[in-house]
Amino acid sequence: MKRLKVSIIGSGSWGCAISKIVGKNVLKRNTFDKRVSMWVYEEIIEGRNLSEIINSTHENVKYLKGHKLPETVVATPDLVEAITDVDILIFVLPHQFLKRCLDTLEGKIKSTAVAISLIKGFQTSVDGDIELISKYITSRLKIQCSVLMGANIANEVANEVFCEGTIGCATKEMKQTFKELFETNYFRVAVVDDTQTVEACGALKNIVACAAGFSDGLLYGNCTKTAIIRIGLMEIKMFINTFLSGSEISTFFESCGISDLFASCYGGRNRKCSALFVEKGKSIYDLEKEILNGQRLQGPSTAEAVNIMLMKKGLEKKFPLFTAVHRIFNFEISPRKLLDHI
Amino acid sequence: MKRLKVSIIGSGSWGCAISKIVGKNVLKRNTFDKRVSMWVYEEIIEGRNLSEIINSTHENVKYLKGHKLPETVVATPDLVEAITDVDILIFVLPHQFLKRCLDTLEGKIKSTAVAISLIKGFQTSVDGDIELISKYITSRLKIQCSVLMGANIANEVANEVFCEGTIGCATKEMKQTFKELFETNYFRVAVVDDTQTVEACGALKNIVACAAGFSDGLLYGNCTKTAIIRIGLMEIKMFINTFLSGSEISTFFESCGISDLFASCYGGRNRKCSALFVEKGKSIYDLEKEILNGQRLQGPSTAEAVNIMLMKKGLEKKFPLFTAVHRIFNFEISPRKLLDHI
Repeated sequence: MKRLKVSIIGSGSWGCAISKIVGKNVLKRNTFDKRVSMWVYEEIIEGRNLSEIINSTHENVKYLKGHKLPETVVATPDLVEAITDVDILIFVLPHQFLKRCLDTLEGKIKSTAVAISLIKGFQTSVDGDIELISKYITSRLKIQCSVLMGANIANEVANEVFCEGTIGCATKEMKQTFKELFETNYFRVAVVDDTQTVEACGALKNIVACAAGFSDGLLYGNCTKTAIIRIGLMEIKMFINTFLSGSEISTFFESCGISDLFASCYGGRNRKCSALFVEKGKSIYDLEKEILNGQRLQGPSTAEAVNIMLMKKGLEKKFPLFTAVHRIFNFEISPRKLLDHI
Repeated sequence: MKRLKVSIIGSGSWGCAISKIVGKNVLKRNTFDKRVSMWVYEEIIEGRNLSEIINSTHENVKYLKGHKLPETVVATPDLVEAITDVDILIFVLPHQFLKRCLDTLEGKIKSTAVAISLIKGFQTSVDGDIELISKYITSRLKIQCSVLMGANIANEVANEVFCEGTIGCATKEMKQTFKELFETNYFRVAVVDDTQTVEACGALKNIVACAAGFSDGLLYGNCTKTAIIRIGLMEIKMFINTFLSGSEISTFFESCGISDLFASCYGGRNRKCSALFVEKGKSIYDLEKEILNGQRLQGPSTAEAVNIMLMKKGLEKKFPLFTAVHRIFNFEISPRKLLDHI
């Protein structure tokens, strides 16, 4: 049997953290080719190309300093070279670069290849509707796309501390292969069929994390906060049942569900910035500039995109928490009124 | 129709907090008699009987200072007087006083009465097995017993901040009545049939809160911690399916499930003392003396009782987290080995 070639599209902190796992796992089984290509968006670091630094020092000095990547992982700035003859494409690049990346890849992918997306968030379609990133990849490349989500942060995974992930597997025959590719003793992976729920949870939880942040900013207690989070989870479930293909309730018990949700509601920057939004009374745009160096928070933009979909269908009242979060960021209602609205 | 007489058995902080709700709700509907008796374990406070203080000042100065109880709530130190001709008995006294209370009540309860227990924790039967408190009340008084659980702390409910509760209703015809008795605009109550799951979650979550406390004491990140909590939730579910009547998965999405679990794993004294257990290396018995003024923590004792049941059935390995928590408190394994065991 021909060994499966794997490529990692992206080399940020999460891409490099996952390359530590993938680069070692390909050596453990005969299933995989022992060379993993990694596409690097080329940057010049102290006069040298980042891809060359990675290939000589096996360290991404810019995005995951202090961690050795396995020597099986070979960086290249040439996207087409990275994916040539590849069987498994791991998409792990920032969401805003995806479209351009797919423009380049379209028509150049092996027809039997499969993809797996580690990108959290939604794509917005031309008519303003939310689209799952896995669907978008499938529509552009004409290959099936699974997802890997869960409560896992690049640094924790890179440090090899115990955590979990959930694969929503779109290709039945790949279940075992994906598990072999991503699981280690410190990163435990469950594989489920319910791909859309796995992926949607990873995006929608950010709205709930903002509500949890408001709760913290308002100094509400833990019982109020968990009530808000629970109501948020019910809206996540209802959203998936209304706008996507429906959900298996058991999927919410996986890492992609309650773990990722609560981790984001007790840690994470959506929570933090939303608490500051309440405390400081500044716009979220100003807070993004001040605290995140201009990087965008996912919660407010997801709440906005979701709100557009809810408005179109006249469903705002059925999703009071999602709606309130959006309206609070827009200064239409005061955070103090959050509880009146849910 | 005759109005239903309500009695609150217990007047600690949770009993008084709930009496604020119940005492007002009986005025809103013709369903209820407008006098609610509250049994008070008599104590002398600055030379006066606590029951007399409550009846004259409408404040429990010892257990819920600063909160006015409704005038409909009438305290009595006479347990039999408190329950005479009563239709709804609300049990909300410390777990260790229950047996003696039931000794007094046995044979004196109206045969058509129903009970609802707000007591969290398990009863241990003569042969060392865990028994649900609602079952124990039913077996002693020969009346049906529902439960009210959830992420709610006496002080938060007394302060009338928003939180939620879950009623596991053992008496079908009482669903609406219980909702009318306990729900307010700030305390939102869901009623489900799955009584045993509602009650068992309230006890078993304390074991998981200890594991979460170890995680905090060991300075693990949020992703590791939520993975531990998620694994704990799966053991709660498996325990209920193995030792009790089985569970509806939807019950775990109520306040009694994930909300109470995560609130206890991020706040609460089981978490706190377990973190200190790791940091200070002292026995949990010493920490209870130091921090809780000798009061017992529920987590370690529940873990012990559960362990006895698991050992009897040879199921310790199927419940690695529950087992590890018990063995860690017993100094049989180091907290640092927690992750190796789950």
